[in-house]
Amino acid sequence: MSSLRPTLPGSAYTDPSTFDSERERIFEANWFCAVASTDIPKAGTFRTVTVGRESVLITRSRTGEARAFLNVCRHRGAMLCTEPAGEVRRTFRCPYHAWSYDLDGNLAGAPHLPQMPDVNRAELGLHTVHLREWVGYVWVCLAEDPPSFEDSVMASVAARLGDLSAVDRYGIDGLALGQRITYDVAANWKLVIENFMECYHCATIHPELTGVLPEFAQGWAAQVGVGHGALMGDKVDGFTVDGSEGLGRLPGIDDEQDRRYFAATVLPQVFLNLVPDHVIVHRMFPMAPDRTVVECDWLVEPSVVGAGTDISRSVELFDRVNRQDFDACERCQHGMSSRSYRSGGVLVPTEHHIESFHTWVRTQLGEFVSVPSGEEGAA
Amino acid sequence: MSSLRPTLPGSAYTDPSTFDSERERIFEANWFCAVASTDIPKAGTFRTVTVGRESVLITRSRTGEARAFLNVCRHRGAMLCTEPAGEVRRTFRCPYHAWSYDLDGNLAGAPHLPQMPDVNRAELGLHTVHLREWVGYVWVCLAEDPPSFEDSVMASVAARLGDLSAVDRYGIDGLALGQRITYDVAANWKLVIENFMECYHCATIHPELTGVLPEFAQGWAAQVGVGHGALMGDKVDGFTVDGSEGLGRLPGIDDEQDRRYFAATVLPQVFLNLVPDHVIVHRMFPMAPDRTVVECDWLVEPSVVGAGTDISRSVELFDRVNRQDFDACERCQHGMSSRSYRSGGVLVPTEHHIESFHTWVRTQLGEFVSVPSGEEGAA
Amino acid sequence: MSSLRPTLPGSAYTDPSTFDSERERIFEANWFCAVASTDIPKAGTFRTVTVGRESVLITRSRTGEARAFLNVCRHRGAMLCTEPAGEVRRTFRCPYHAWSYDLDGNLAGAPHLPQMPDVNRAELGLHTVHLREWVGYVWVCLAEDPPSFEDSVMASVAARLGDLSAVDRYGIDGLALGQRITYDVAANWKLVIENFMECYHCATIHPELTGVLPEFAQGWAAQVGVGHGALMGDKVDGFTVDGSEGLGRLPGIDDEQDRRYFAATVLPQVFLNLVPDHVIVHRMFPMAPDRTVVECDWLVEPSVVGAGTDISRSVELFDRVNRQDFDACERCQHGMSSRSYRSGGVLVPTEHHIESFHTWVRTQLGEFVSVPSGEEGAA
Repeated sequence: MSSLRPTLPGSAYTDPSTFDSERERIFEANWFCAVASTDIPKAGTFRTVTVGRESVLITRSRTGEARAFLNVCRHRGAMLCTEPAGEVRRTFRCPYHAWSYDLDGNLAGAPHLPQMPDVNRAELGLHTVHLREWVGYVWVCLAEDPPSFEDSVMASVAARLGDLSAVDRYGIDGLALGQRITYDVAANWKLVIENFMECYHCATIHPELTGVLPEFAQGWAAQVGVGHGALMGDKVDGFTVDGSEGLGRLPGIDDEQDRRYFAATVLPQVFLNLVPDHVIVHRMFPMAPDRTVVECDWLVEPSVVGAGTDISRSVELFDRVNRQDFDACERCQHGMSSRSYRSGGVLVPTEHHIESFHTWVRTQLGEFVSVPSGEEGAA
Repeated sequence: MSSLRPTLPGSAYTDPSTFDSERERIFEANWFCAVASTDIPKAGTFRTVTVGRESVLITRSRTGEARAFLNVCRHRGAMLCTEPAGEVRRTFRCPYHAWSYDLDGNLAGAPHLPQMPDVNRAELGLHTVHLREWVGYVWVCLAEDPPSFEDSVMASVAARLGDLSAVDRYGIDGLALGQRITYDVAANWKLVIENFMECYHCATIHPELTGVLPEFAQGWAAQVGVGHGALMGDKVDGFTVDGSEGLGRLPGIDDEQDRRYFAATVLPQVFLNLVPDHVIVHRMFPMAPDRTVVECDWLVEPSVVGAGTDISRSVELFDRVNRQDFDACERCQHGMSSRSYRSGGVLVPTEHHIESFHTWVRTQLGEFVSVPSGEEGAA
Repeated sequence: MSSLRPTLPGSAYTDPSTFDSERERIFEANWFCAVASTDIPKAGTFRTVTVGRESVLITRSRTGEARAFLNVCRHRGAMLCTEPAGEVRRTFRCPYHAWSYDLDGNLAGAPHLPQMPDVNRAELGLHTVHLREWVGYVWVCLAEDPPSFEDSVMASVAARLGDLSAVDRYGIDGLALGQRITYDVAANWKLVIENFMECYHCATIHPELTGVLPEFAQGWAAQVGVGHGALMGDKVDGFTVDGSEGLGRLPGIDDEQDRRYFAATVLPQVFLNLVPDHVIVHRMFPMAPDRTVVECDWLVEPSVVGAGTDISRSVELFDRVNRQDFDACERCQHGMSSRSYRSGGVLVPTEHHIESFHTWVRTQLGEFVSVPSGEEGAA
């Protein structure tokens, strides 16, 4: 295989109709990591999030199960909840005509309803969205017939880390939210994915990260090699902005996981970052061809939050990495509409695996794609 | 007929090409209530308003008749008047090359014109727009061959109130402008119309209005039943925000009209509200699929304005109603693009008459519509 | 020929697809005056400018020659320089993966490049843009096979002024930048061109200019008649806002050029204004169908800048003219979408030569145009 492999053409990152197709065929068709389970701690607490072209209302039922619905009243189409987060007691009551829905989405009542004996309430519940809770997050799927969660989300994490027990040992669903930072990135979501998939840029833009993980300066992706985790430098004491000591080691991880950074991409919109003392989760929300909102969570042991321990040096490391990456993505977005990038750019050997992401995108969009020979497709 | 009837699909409220068709086939084809007659009190005073896709210049001639023109110079297309209101002495003079037009729209002069003997000035006047003054307002129609004013505007008011003498008794064209409030609503114009046509929402969002008009809490539309006017509550002294005494009864109305609220919709963009001591007129200006400017006038007896009487409690009642309604419309606009509303929502019995508005819209747009059986079509 | 000739239809000034065609077939196909030569005074200084749909990077090589490139890295499409101006030492280094290009656009280096022996660096240089320096400006052409600079740019100046020696005598490439003002005009670029091409509006909107050049009040265009320059009024001492004395006469001009104002339009986007003591150059950057950025330079003898001479009265004259003109253009833009201008407006005899500009535009866009009989086409 040649040293240089082709990328997608520039129009894939700017064309509004491509973005519309992606929202329909990728973000509304696959499992989408919407909110943290702790964002809806008890019955009636809710969040609203944008998934593809839809506003989705996510709440917890009286029996403690997470539920997701299209955030639209069945009567005249009013948006039920316009706030990003909140809490109701027993029902979501539409503020327009007072149609109300219980926490399972059933139509609980409406003015005049008793005078309409022919109306079948069961047909007037909120539109339900498929939902799974896993590793402390609520994943939703807008497809009528979702792909297997095990064969898609879980399989891609297992493929990256070797097996699922590797991630289980971090006990993510028992961690607490140490900090959340939201980034509004003026770039196509695929640029954000591609950036995360390669480390050829690390030596150029990530001085703090390569300081802590010296092998990243070589340019090989964190995700190259099944089960590989980048080793911290000899004189590094922790995964912090200055390499100083971090928090206590998570209790469940084994010695091979200690002092290492593992990363996994769950297409289409999650990055999972595992380090000995915390876990970082990125969720991406594509808003426009040239705009992606990224919500990044730093998860730590509950005792760390309880004790009010200072986690700022831990947070600052990846916050800097994020800003450095997103600046680069925005710089690329500017070039995507140039005739110079009309047929795309090139991937060097340390970036070749990005080609499998491109194949995945094209396949999702229903384009005929001949998989490049010699590629195994390990996203 | 079933208790639930269908609405328009969500795309009718969001699609830019539908909105373009509506501007052309509805707002530029029908009579449009543009300004109050008192907005152009004397010769040479003018207003500019947006009607469909056009800026229309409305003025009064030296003989006192209202005149309307497309607000564009015939020479090189400069907009003649960029201000919303103003006054000229004898001519509208284009500020670019000084072509000037008299108050009847005729080309009055232009530099070098005397040296162009072959030019027929009669062909270079401003494009005239059809115009009628009625109930104290200037109505314009951009169609070349307008529909009969009597059979459309006047007939729809008569159909609502029983006969035109009912509205004549309010003497609207003799009233003065007590207050004008302009609302910029982030919703499609049809949501604003539909909201005004039903009172199923009144109990939920209009506490002050149902306080004054208790029957509105039942949910039946103000416009249901020819000639019906909602009666004020027993302990209500006036049509004010707190039910306290309002202004003096208008001299011309009869006893049956006293203590009642009458409302009429004149499609596509006027609401007429008649109460014993004042009249409220809403004019809607659709600006985009998701934006409608509403100008609301509170009209009172000239003596009220002359005496400086405090009308704030009268104004505050419907100002609150307006804000409550427009909030609801904006909330609906958010839901119109959801797949949950792809084939629309439902109308309960107290809203069934909205279906005739939908039929009217579809007919205007030239869509083939079979009128639902059992509907009389009384907008 | 009739006294009135037709203009372009209104849609030519508002339609996004027409604007796209113009960017491709006019602004990316012809010579485009991008920056002043003095904007890139030495090797490694650079400017970035928008030409049609592209960001173009303009710099000076180590041998002193100006160079232009598409401002996009060949690797992953990052924009190389996001600043409007700056300076590099030896190379443009992409801030994403550190690919670097020398001042001639060749790929100078990239991480891992030595390990990719099959890669042909010559194929990975920046995309070169054709370039000429003339009259103190850098002109670029994005066409693969540009039109002859002599037969287009130089010929149009010669046709206007009689011969090129007339412009050479002003020694423009030896002048210094006295002042630069940038205007953001909410109007289509063609309205700006048309405005500059006629003086029928001068009596109406340019009191200061007609004060200095009384013949402009007659309405005949500065550009009517080969080699004609408008004469200053008898009591006028200089080309200043109040007719007071200006700067010293430029040394090279001859007596016939003294006390006269000469103007030339170089399609599609340059106005050249020659007066005895300075030169004014307008460059237009079309940004959207209804937006044009105009950069205007006042060029004076270097000794004027060196001595810190006050040039404000000289600058103020044309700054006022610019603001008056651009206000008029913006007023026209409002009228372009009216049905009143659907088939355009009319040109009076003093504007007839604008018709040849319209023919030029249509020809560039590949529309079949029959040249109006009796027109010579002297833009």
